[in-house]
Amino acid sequence: MKLLEDEIRKRGQILPGNVLKVNSFLNHKIDPMLLEAMAEEWYQKFKNEDINKVVTIESSGIAMAILVALKFKCELVFAKKGKSSTLGNVMTASVYSFTKEKDVLISIENGYIREDDNVLIIDDFLANGSACNGLISIIKYAKANVKGIGIAIEKGFQDGGKLLRSQGYKVESLAIIKSMNADSGTIEFMEAE
Amino acid sequence: MKLLEDEIRKRGQILPGNVLKVNSFLNHKIDPMLLEAMAEEWYQKFKNEDINKVVTIESSGIAMAILVALKFKCELVFAKKGKSSTLGNVMTASVYSFTKEKDVLISIENGYIREDDNVLIIDDFLANGSACNGLISIIKYAKANVKGIGIAIEKGFQDGGKLLRSQGYKVESLAIIKSMNADSGTIEFMEAE
Repeated sequence: MKLLEDEIRKRGQILPGNVLKVNSFLNHKIDPMLLEAMAEEWYQKFKNEDINKVVTIESSGIAMAILVALKFKCELVFAKKGKSSTLGNVMTASVYSFTKEKDVLISIENGYIREDDNVLIIDDFLANGSACNGLISIIKYAKANVKGIGIAIEKGFQDGGKLLRSQGYKVESLAIIKSMNADSGTIEFMEAE
Repeated sequence: MKLLEDEIRKRGQILPGNVLKVNSFLNHKIDPMLLEAMAEEWYQKFKNEDINKVVTIESSGIAMAILVALKFKCELVFAKKGKSSTLGNVMTASVYSFTKEKDVLISIENGYIREDDNVLIIDDFLANGSACNGLISIIKYAKANVKGIGIAIEKGFQDGGKLLRSQGYKVESLAIIKSMNADSGTIEFMEAE
């Protein structure tokens, strides 16, 4: 998606350790018009998949996921990290957070994903796929179907996307980074198919 | 807002300790059409305040806040909890989380709220006002203006809303709980003014 690639070039910061910081427009300070355009793009890609639930993880995925859920006129469920006194019985998975630099437990309350739900996963980043695989394991536990995975920014030089696609998942990333270099500040995207 | 009050009556759960659980439609599993209607309600209440920035706290405020920001066609900033390796220099405040049962540090990166920004704060709950006051202290530190505070559910039997209004803030809560009782499962709302 050219609009997102342009914003990444213009406003993204490449930090050492292959970290792309998009805090100024995507996941701390957020440009809602950009997210709205992204949601429309995902809607077009998945509109024939009978989606009846959107699932993401707190926090960075929520803003984009609610806009997608609004387009599908279906509910959004976001997996919670850590413990909360208001959570009942939950389905859990363990995922590694690169920004927090530790494993975190993610939880979704029992019954919030139902058997035979057709789920679209939405998240901001896909690198090694840890977050996505955690969500998939919860969705499968609930006996629902993963009908698609919509990612804002995929790090194409890491394995997550490749592995998910090889397992047959329909992964649609709006920007796929081929390479990036913190020293020169350059970033290269893969061509859209 | 009658629609929100009806949903709370229908789908909210009153737990001991004055906890109202709205996980099934507002802040874990989310009904985007309800949030869209709430966002429109806040927009009508604050549209003459020259709002150019919406501010909330992760995670439960984000979904409603992005819909509000989209209506105002302005940026959303959500305060982050805890530490993240991608945060630069930050403005911070300490707030008490009832659901996590501890003080948490909230942070907004320097420069994301600018001098003279006209800020609308959006959050899901207002009880003692700890989260709101944390955000206000950061917004004031940035020399911006708090032009309004939009709350989904205010616990009218706690002091937060009263104190904020007595300080001159325009607080618009879409549902104000007068009393609730975990044993009987009853909940009473204050009449809209």
